[in-house]
Amino acid sequence: MKTRINIVKIGGAFLEEPGLAQDFYRAFAGLPGLKVLVHGGGQRATQLSKRLGIEPRMVDGRRITDADSLEVAVMVYGGWANKTLVAALQALGCPALGVSGADADLIRARKRPVTQIDYGFVGDIESVQTAPLVRLLESGLAPVFCALTHDGNGQLLNTNADTIASAVAVALSETYETHLYYCFEKSGVLTDINNPDSRVPQLNTKLYREMTDSGQIAAGMLPKLHNCFQALEQGVSRVYIGKPEMLEPGNKTHTEILL
Amino acid sequence: MKTRINIVKIGGAFLEEPGLAQDFYRAFAGLPGLKVLVHGGGQRATQLSKRLGIEPRMVDGRRITDADSLEVAVMVYGGWANKTLVAALQALGCPALGVSGADADLIRARKRPVTQIDYGFVGDIESVQTAPLVRLLESGLAPVFCALTHDGNGQLLNTNADTIASAVAVALSETYETHLYYCFEKSGVLTDINNPDSRVPQLNTKLYREMTDSGQIAAGMLPKLHNCFQALEQGVSRVYIGKPEMLEPGNKTHTEILL
Repeated sequence: MKTRINIVKIGGAFLEEPGLAQDFYRAFAGLPGLKVLVHGGGQRATQLSKRLGIEPRMVDGRRITDADSLEVAVMVYGGWANKTLVAALQALGCPALGVSGADADLIRARKRPVTQIDYGFVGDIESVQTAPLVRLLESGLAPVFCALTHDGNGQLLNTNADTIASAVAVALSETYETHLYYCFEKSGVLTDINNPDSRVPQLNTKLYREMTDSGQIAAGMLPKLHNCFQALEQGVSRVYIGKPEMLEPGNKTHTEILL
Repeated sequence: MKTRINIVKIGGAFLEEPGLAQDFYRAFAGLPGLKVLVHGGGQRATQLSKRLGIEPRMVDGRRITDADSLEVAVMVYGGWANKTLVAALQALGCPALGVSGADADLIRARKRPVTQIDYGFVGDIESVQTAPLVRLLESGLAPVFCALTHDGNGQLLNTNADTIASAVAVALSETYETHLYYCFEKSGVLTDINNPDSRVPQLNTKLYREMTDSGQIAAGMLPKLHNCFQALEQGVSRVYIGKPEMLEPGNKTHTEILL
């Protein structure tokens, strides 16, 4: 039987509110056994860009990462967010080690090819190097990934944190029984976005299709749920989506995603 | 006989000039065997502070690290400088892993006590955790330290990179034969600061005292040389100071520091 590992994705917004952040740190630090954290950058990158007079460029709701924006992302995701998180987890006795995809060559990506849109320094994941990652885990560390990868030729790239979480979970599925948790601001998938009590305890592909067809799933949720289903198809054992509280023992307030 | 390890400190200024940086990356990546890199932040933190309207505060030539300055240091040292370096080294096949003192709890420090001057969020090193550091090295990684530590209670602290290099070298001296290299803009200790040919090949405590008494050693060099002598007294085998070229095979253009 494989050893279980928990892979947790946390949105950057949580890190910006000290109270929420502290609750999350405690929940993550309290998880027993092997674990990996993946964090987003939140609004801090946008705020810093504004303060520096760098106009954020968005196309179809996606941030275009030019050279200046990449520098901001590297400073905010790889520096401020990652190190703040690591120091907070260490204070709770959690053996956190902050990494980007460049560190130990953990995640290689390639710059997204330019078609109609040039996304700039955005990386699509090519491979997760399982061997060094497993060595870090087996030496007792809890890797904390920021949303940065590299191309192996010295170029850092901006990569979506949800996608990193899913790719890391898939890569670790050969070695471990992987449980993937997407923490966000809602208690799961809701049939009515305005009613927190309308949570679906389990969402399978059939229900997903029905809810997508009826317009019950918000557009913003689609890429996230796509990552969830893809992870399950590629060997991840369990995928959950909900508030960070779902990490606490006995808490079942989440939506489990099923094939 | 102990295995040899090279600990290299590089000033942040080198990282800001692409040509110099590339030469250094190649020299470091080319070092055989176990190695550790420690880097400073250079002018980039001062530049970013200026762009953000944060006035740098200096007392006795030392930067005062208030909360805003610490945030800048974390972004620049832990984010931009550290990740840029790691990605560049990975491109040369060097298995770099970027760390701060908070990562894997590698370096604990305590906030410098307030006496006549409140230095702010500056950390004096209390301990280097040798066990996790050795595990990283033995798993084939080359740790790359930025100039940040933590207090174990969630607070990140700014710590001088020269001091980190010396503390890491001392801590590793129990396990390895440690060679410590301080790379800076001169080819070593000069008897005449305006004459690059006046390099002293070896500087022992006797010559150091003579040169200090005669005013031949610039004030800015004193803390650096103090670190060198302290490292030797505490078990480091060899300490060199010079340009990054001294890392290249057969190059002896440096000053060796001796007790």
